[in-house]
Amino acid sequence: MLDSLFRPKAVAVIGASTKELTIGNRIIRNLTEFDFKGAIYPINPKGEEVRGLKTYRSILDVPTDVDVVHMVIPAKLVPQAIEDCGKKAVKFVILNGGGFAEVGPEGAAIEQACILSAKRNGIRIMGPNCQGIINTDPEVRAYCNFTFTRPDIGFISIVALSGGVAELIHQAFSEMGVGTRLYASNGNACDVSIPEILEYYGEDEGTRVIVLYVEGLREPDKFLQAAAKVAAKKPILAMKAGRTKEGATAAASHTGGLAREDISTDLIFEKTGILSFRDVSELCNAAVAFSSQPIPHGNRVGMITNAGGPAVISTDELVAGGLKLAHLSDRTVEYLKGKMYPEVGLHNPLDVLATAGPDHFRAALDAMVGEDQVDNVYVNMVTPFFVDTDGIARQVVQVNKQGIKPLIVNLITDRRQRGETVRILRDGGVAFYSMPGTAARAMAALNRYNAIRSRPAGQVRTFDDVDRARAEAIILQAQGAGRKMLSAAEAYGVLQAYGISVADWRIAQDAAEAEKAAAEIGFPVVVKADAESIVHKSDMGGVAVNLKEAGAVRGAVQEMSQKLQAEDMRFFVQKYLPGGREVIVGAKAEEGLGHLILFGMGGIYVEILKDVAFKLAPVTNIEAQEMLSSIKMAPLLKGVRGEKGVNEKALVETLQRVSQLVTEFPMIDEMDLNPIIAFEDGSFVVDARISVKR
Amino acid sequence: MLDSLFRPKAVAVIGASTKELTIGNRIIRNLTEFDFKGAIYPINPKGEEVRGLKTYRSILDVPTDVDVVHMVIPAKLVPQAIEDCGKKAVKFVILNGGGFAEVGPEGAAIEQACILSAKRNGIRIMGPNCQGIINTDPEVRAYCNFTFTRPDIGFISIVALSGGVAELIHQAFSEMGVGTRLYASNGNACDVSIPEILEYYGEDEGTRVIVLYVEGLREPDKFLQAAAKVAAKKPILAMKAGRTKEGATAAASHTGGLAREDISTDLIFEKTGILSFRDVSELCNAAVAFSSQPIPHGNRVGMITNAGGPAVISTDELVAGGLKLAHLSDRTVEYLKGKMYPEVGLHNPLDVLATAGPDHFRAALDAMVGEDQVDNVYVNMVTPFFVDTDGIARQVVQVNKQGIKPLIVNLITDRRQRGETVRILRDGGVAFYSMPGTAARAMAALNRYNAIRSRPAGQVRTFDDVDRARAEAIILQAQGAGRKMLSAAEAYGVLQAYGISVADWRIAQDAAEAEKAAAEIGFPVVVKADAESIVHKSDMGGVAVNLKEAGAVRGAVQEMSQKLQAEDMRFFVQKYLPGGREVIVGAKAEEGLGHLILFGMGGIYVEILKDVAFKLAPVTNIEAQEMLSSIKMAPLLKGVRGEKGVNEKALVETLQRVSQLVTEFPMIDEMDLNPIIAFEDGSFVVDARISVKR
Repeated sequence: MLDSLFRPKAVAVIGASTKELTIGNRIIRNLTEFDFKGAIYPINPKGEEVRGLKTYRSILDVPTDVDVVHMVIPAKLVPQAIEDCGKKAVKFVILNGGGFAEVGPEGAAIEQACILSAKRNGIRIMGPNCQGIINTDPEVRAYCNFTFTRPDIGFISIVALSGGVAELIHQAFSEMGVGTRLYASNGNACDVSIPEILEYYGEDEGTRVIVLYVEGLREPDKFLQAAAKVAAKKPILAMKAGRTKEGATAAASHTGGLAREDISTDLIFEKTGILSFRDVSELCNAAVAFSSQPIPHGNRVGMITNAGGPAVISTDELVAGGLKLAHLSDRTVEYLKGKMYPEVGLHNPLDVLATAGPDHFRAALDAMVGEDQVDNVYVNMVTPFFVDTDGIARQVVQVNKQGIKPLIVNLITDRRQRGETVRILRDGGVAFYSMPGTAARAMAALNRYNAIRSRPAGQVRTFDDVDRARAEAIILQAQGAGRKMLSAAEAYGVLQAYGISVADWRIAQDAAEAEKAAAEIGFPVVVKADAESIVHKSDMGGVAVNLKEAGAVRGAVQEMSQKLQAEDMRFFVQKYLPGGREVIVGAKAEEGLGHLILFGMGGIYVEILKDVAFKLAPVTNIEAQEMLSSIKMAPLLKGVRGEKGVNEKALVETLQRVSQLVTEFPMIDEMDLNPIIAFEDGSFVVDARISVKR
Repeated sequence: MLDSLFRPKAVAVIGASTKELTIGNRIIRNLTEFDFKGAIYPINPKGEEVRGLKTYRSILDVPTDVDVVHMVIPAKLVPQAIEDCGKKAVKFVILNGGGFAEVGPEGAAIEQACILSAKRNGIRIMGPNCQGIINTDPEVRAYCNFTFTRPDIGFISIVALSGGVAELIHQAFSEMGVGTRLYASNGNACDVSIPEILEYYGEDEGTRVIVLYVEGLREPDKFLQAAAKVAAKKPILAMKAGRTKEGATAAASHTGGLAREDISTDLIFEKTGILSFRDVSELCNAAVAFSSQPIPHGNRVGMITNAGGPAVISTDELVAGGLKLAHLSDRTVEYLKGKMYPEVGLHNPLDVLATAGPDHFRAALDAMVGEDQVDNVYVNMVTPFFVDTDGIARQVVQVNKQGIKPLIVNLITDRRQRGETVRILRDGGVAFYSMPGTAARAMAALNRYNAIRSRPAGQVRTFDDVDRARAEAIILQAQGAGRKMLSAAEAYGVLQAYGISVADWRIAQDAAEAEKAAAEIGFPVVVKADAESIVHKSDMGGVAVNLKEAGAVRGAVQEMSQKLQAEDMRFFVQKYLPGGREVIVGAKAEEGLGHLILFGMGGIYVEILKDVAFKLAPVTNIEAQEMLSSIKMAPLLKGVRGEKGVNEKALVETLQRVSQLVTEFPMIDEMDLNPIIAFEDGSFVVDARISVKR
């Protein structure tokens, strides 16, 4: 529990300094100027008074218990200082200084010594190489941090390893005049972790929305668990940077190689219900809306405007964000009659005209809030000099206070001239922005969250007709033999054990057996050379397709035997399935995270369009169906140009069975069913590769 | 010439008012407070002094010549007032009031009367229903406008019909502390038009960059000519709103139906070299960079940062914007040695560390500016309390003043605490932003412009082997017969006259002729029923493909004759071409703009992926090649999976010939060559539809 970290009763600063421009001075200053409600103990061997506070020579001299100790001393002195803190029963140390793992092996050794010392003494470490925390709760007011942005009280809590980005986000809220609640930047994060902090934010009643920045996930499984728990309670808005190869390299150089492939972070966000952003400024703008507005129940917008052009831009942006303009009911039109200027068209967007005053705006707002067809209210407001914009702002505030529907304002004004209008909106807790696109995207984010919140849960289906023992035996045998790649027979055996439909197949040692196998399977057939020594079968002439009678099978086998001359050569004979649609199903183990499952269109589609969808295993029925419908060429599965569609149910089941298989066998490293031929009545794997971890 | 409008020596305001909150008072106030360098004449029948200025009862009483007259009087009084202005030899009237075409037929009639009166009197009209103009040139200082944002002197000129958006844009610059040069919002635009204003801005030496907002283009041809001329001289940054159906409806309701299909506006922007934006805030941010920074000569970025996380985000955004991180040469690494803190890694991004001071930054800046591998310099700057950020800012300003390479700064600071740092950067003309994405996208815009500026010109090829007379005869004949749709024979005739390869074809009246035609063409053939009365041939059994011998042709003709029973029935016999790649070429007349030319992959690709590219005719060789390479399935044209590619040169030629055809015959309404079958050695139209205007 991080309660003592975020709600300390006493904070000491080891390395407190009398010099203005030092971190050891700044932390004391931040604590005192922000009016910290607990005790502050500067620690300094010289014992000089720091910023008017009594200073102690050692943490051991401090008269009361201490919850949090900042350390602003050279790294090499930190392990001993932690030992001292142990004697004092300190609960948390915040290591603000650098010189630890981020500078190389020597620093990493010191960091390791700190971890050991802390463990021994029952102390938790925040950092090292970190800013610290902030809690604006009026009962706490802990500015345990050396940053420069003065906190205001609010409902948004921020967490990021990167101090620079945490500060950037904090600064953005400050510039919008919006307060924050909790703040944590844990730098090297050798102990207190992002998942722990997330869980704490989830429990904190004063936190309405959580803003998270990551460049990679260190313990994806722990993160997934914590995020799922917290996201079920309150919105988490997150951004993952280091998305490009170049960005990931930059991230690795300042965090020490945390960057992982993007896709798994995105999938974790998606699975846990975290709202993901690509742009930090969009993230901040959205958080402001979440901190003050209710979540909408639908995506229909009622727009009020007193200028034409900005309403056009706003409409474009809202529609692009998945919202739609509501149709106003007769009742609402009736309500508005006589309350607007006569030349006002009573439709949505409702252009109340530049000359509209407070009463016009109020009537329009009441109409939109009262309209059943409207889920969200969007206001475009320019401030012509000839109207009472303060009065309009007051009406907006009153309606906003009702909290019935989310209300977003795009305010076009000169803040120097119209400071009072701005102040009224800000103090009234209105979510307002100065660009139509910005405002519209904040509203779109609220609606994106509503869509996540109201998505069906889905079921992970566990098939009990699987032959787990058989699959296990095959895999263990391959592992036992030191092989990474299963043979074709093994791979198909595993698939069949898990009820995954494969094209009928046999293994033959020679031409006679191959002919017999083909007869059993039924013509036409494919024959593939099956030997460990042959990797690129088709390039080497090891594949013959569409063999229609026994002679052709014999001929193919003889030709391959001559051409390839492998000692361990066998022949894989399989039913040839012309027609149908080529699709791909795959799986890939991700360190610490189980498996990614992939679905896509095969052939040129995957090659040119990269037309694939990913999910994290275990895949629910809903997720499997989403994979099918989210690829670009999805209409091909439904059937186009008079051609029949494929059996989507069979594909969904295949995805679920693959998901069960890899979940039950974590040692499966990669699986590539490419292609599966899908028909109207079912689908069949015709090429399968499975590799296992050794 | 709009010189008298933008550089008036005397301005009168008919309808000047003593009442504070009126437009007739505000314009006088804006002119006086902004220190207009010319004479200001309030006109008011009561003759009361307005804001301390002598007022005249009539424009005719004014003692000097008058260049510009604002009219802030009821619409119905305007035509007579224009007559009076005629007697006074006024050059421009700005009609600020509403009540014209935007309110319906009655207002439109008044507007028409104004136009006639103005023409008669040699007066040009700005508006009606408009804000007016601004010119911040110190010699002019004309704030002929009733808006509320006080102008500052700068290099950005703004033009928009929509006053609300013009104001929004102006406000955005003002908030960033960046000045503007010219400003024009012309409302209903019954006379002075956007193309004219663009041309004027092009001539204005004080304008470095033009910002344009449109919801639709009224005279696309004039716009195209003006934009091409101006864009060749200076950057035009533009945004087109009303992109979504809903947005276009909103636009239509406030401008009176200007909205046209998006695509042609985008194509005009592309063709003329206008830099197009989807987001008005991004547009404004980019304009700030254009107003102070040189255009880069390449897309390689050198990044200096004193914080890790923001550099990661910036890198992602720069790479997403088409930029790449430069590799620093040994020479630069050598230069930096000893000039940075020892723990600084000498690579790009160059993290100078949070503790870096002015000298470190200056050395880093000099290194990047001096590095041949770097075309753009990007600075991420947080302002830790313990460093001299004013000093850093001064170094940035000095390097910025050199103007050697574009320099963009992402400044993460508390503007209240670090006001001086901000002021130094602003006064030093540095392009700085407060979000990494914002800064990176501004830099990307500079580079987008460089790419446009340095794109090869391309040639419009005019084929002299075309038989124009024959095509003309066919088209005139169809028009003469009152037909909109050409028959298959006519369409193929036109194509052949223009040297466009078609699959060999004949027209046959009956089975015998069809057999003979097939023999001449060579089997296999396609037979299609060709009668005006039959529209959906294939649905009605009017198409038979892959007929391999004479009997099959006869059978097909007989069956169609029986089934379809049209009086005007003939048979279209054509070479059947199996294999190859289906592509589409099309053309469509756009009112006032010539034709759009389309290229795409045929079949399911156009159906599912909408895999098409558009250009405006006449299409250059470069543009035609771009069409081929810009579609999603472009690799199919090159050949995939061992299949051979198609003859791209032949397709490029087809596009150019189609372009020439529609350009020479503006009466062609639509053309649809779908599909063209493309092979390794050439391509052949196998289905063609051409419709003409009646």
